[in-house]
Amino acid sequence: MPIATRAFAAVAADRPLEPYSFERRDPGPDDVAIDVKFCGVCHSDLHVAHNDLGNTRYPIVPGHEVAGVVSAVGANVTKFKVGDRVGVGCMVDSCRTCAPCREGEEQYCVPGMTQTYGSADPKGGPVNQTITQGGYSDHITVDQNYVLSIPDSIPLDAAAPLLCAGITTYSPLKHWKIGPGSRVAVVGLGGLGHMAVKQAAAMGAEVTVISTSDRKKADAERMGAKHFLINTDKAAMAAAAESFNLIINTVSATHEIAGQVQLLAKDGTMVMLGLTTEGLPVYAMGLLWRRRSVAGSLIGGIRETQEMLDFCAANAIACDVEVIAPDRINEAYERMGKSDVRYRFVLDMARL
Amino acid sequence: MPIATRAFAAVAADRPLEPYSFERRDPGPDDVAIDVKFCGVCHSDLHVAHNDLGNTRYPIVPGHEVAGVVSAVGANVTKFKVGDRVGVGCMVDSCRTCAPCREGEEQYCVPGMTQTYGSADPKGGPVNQTITQGGYSDHITVDQNYVLSIPDSIPLDAAAPLLCAGITTYSPLKHWKIGPGSRVAVVGLGGLGHMAVKQAAAMGAEVTVISTSDRKKADAERMGAKHFLINTDKAAMAAAAESFNLIINTVSATHEIAGQVQLLAKDGTMVMLGLTTEGLPVYAMGLLWRRRSVAGSLIGGIRETQEMLDFCAANAIACDVEVIAPDRINEAYERMGKSDVRYRFVLDMARL
Repeated sequence: MPIATRAFAAVAADRPLEPYSFERRDPGPDDVAIDVKFCGVCHSDLHVAHNDLGNTRYPIVPGHEVAGVVSAVGANVTKFKVGDRVGVGCMVDSCRTCAPCREGEEQYCVPGMTQTYGSADPKGGPVNQTITQGGYSDHITVDQNYVLSIPDSIPLDAAAPLLCAGITTYSPLKHWKIGPGSRVAVVGLGGLGHMAVKQAAAMGAEVTVISTSDRKKADAERMGAKHFLINTDKAAMAAAAESFNLIINTVSATHEIAGQVQLLAKDGTMVMLGLTTEGLPVYAMGLLWRRRSVAGSLIGGIRETQEMLDFCAANAIACDVEVIAPDRINEAYERMGKSDVRYRFVLDMARL
Repeated sequence: MPIATRAFAAVAADRPLEPYSFERRDPGPDDVAIDVKFCGVCHSDLHVAHNDLGNTRYPIVPGHEVAGVVSAVGANVTKFKVGDRVGVGCMVDSCRTCAPCREGEEQYCVPGMTQTYGSADPKGGPVNQTITQGGYSDHITVDQNYVLSIPDSIPLDAAAPLLCAGITTYSPLKHWKIGPGSRVAVVGLGGLGHMAVKQAAAMGAEVTVISTSDRKKADAERMGAKHFLINTDKAAMAAAAESFNLIINTVSATHEIAGQVQLLAKDGTMVMLGLTTEGLPVYAMGLLWRRRSVAGSLIGGIRETQEMLDFCAANAIACDVEVIAPDRINEAYERMGKSDVRYRFVLDMARL
């Protein structure tokens, strides 16, 4: 029987999100039905709600940082049982046969992963859903292969943002082999940035936060940063030239990156994680003079997401969250536009 | 006794190169004196002669693709003897103590390598030279540690451009681990590009040339390219999306690179080799969707340059050259501005 679901949805680019009811599919043989307890609020949600990429189909329920408890499982489900604490991130399916899928990097699925919201929903037919709907909702049904186990030591509210923010920073830190002796800079101390600081520090790196002001300096140090750099301080920026092996750039607004490239050591990489939409000028000279790279990275695969959750549990890492009732989502979006959150809004679905 | 040297020099940004006489230092204990036989003409020479980077000191003798024969050696020289066939590339010294120098990547020397022309010359005192002067000259004196051995099988005229063009393409092909099964695109079939095609093909890669027209298609195929792509052919460019592990971008003029990024496969890298001076816009989305990178690479170290020369000899690779008398250098610059050379001008110093 379809699952009656309450949610908050965007109905048009220029209108606030509003309460919305729809049905989730009854779990099929491989599905896990989840009672959503908390859902993190990601900057991408805002981009999609506002149709910043021009491809949003309304109404859309955002949310891809889902933490909850299993309420039912299908006949073939072996990985989870009723009552398990689980999470769902940015994807709920992928082709499973292309090279990236076979290698456990489903986020780079060649025909394209099924995103948690806004993708064509191949299983939505029985409940008349043509697109997937996300986690600003009290129920969700997901194939067991795309569900994560949340370690007991991490509270569900502080775990929710790990499913996107946490894996988005963990994956490049691992890919670019960060460990003891690495020098890592994190540009922007927000939802992603504060995860990057905690994770990089736990991996043994010497971490610097680069920000526009010093108002988050004490927080950065508490999270594990050794240094704090203000990007308008020309002398400090010059002194930091050629010093970082990896720069994690979390800024999702158009900004100048050429100056940041100069901070990279030989063979250093700046990895862009924010969904900026305009072209950002890079200078060949800055790249070739020290064999530097500017790269991008997209969330992480399912196996790596589980590894990240276990790493966070082992290192007592969770998100710093501000838990709010779902009906405050529009206010949250407004505050996020001003970077006024420490460090992630999380919707408490019990307060729907 | 100082060595009387004849050369061609740029004397001002807006004047043609002209004959110029000066003195080279007599070889010190660690030096090799070289009779220059041929010198390749690199696009960087033109940038410096025209003061495109704003830091040229005149008069300047360009040239860092030097091939010649040893005429004298200092008391400590063990690597070379009179009569040996040798080459000099883009650097004639470096600090020798920083991490990159110790690792054999002297091109990334932290205090900065001593470039073959235009750098402060720490050994120029006895002959009143404050800056280094390059290979558009009939003699040069260089420390043995920065001199390369040219294999007998490569004619000196066709070897000269290997010292810059050849190593500039070889180093990134090795750094990004190109081999059998790799798919490599080369943007621009000029001095660098034609070397990249030959070397990548010899390493076992499947090579595609990307150009603005098909007028060099037959040449590209002769050099080892399997495919030829015209960058204005939208259908062909779309069909090539996500297909290359490495794109070697040799274009030294400002150009659009975002479309090229879309041609990279997951984890693919576009490496910029040309000395473009303006910012080239890149889009975060194109990078992060497939964890792509835009990187730069600068020539190669001395050890790797020797390895490249030996690789070229073993694979019967040399430059395609148009040998000219030194007094045709200004005409050569003019033709290079129109990409009218197949594929490298080389000055024959015997015709000085």
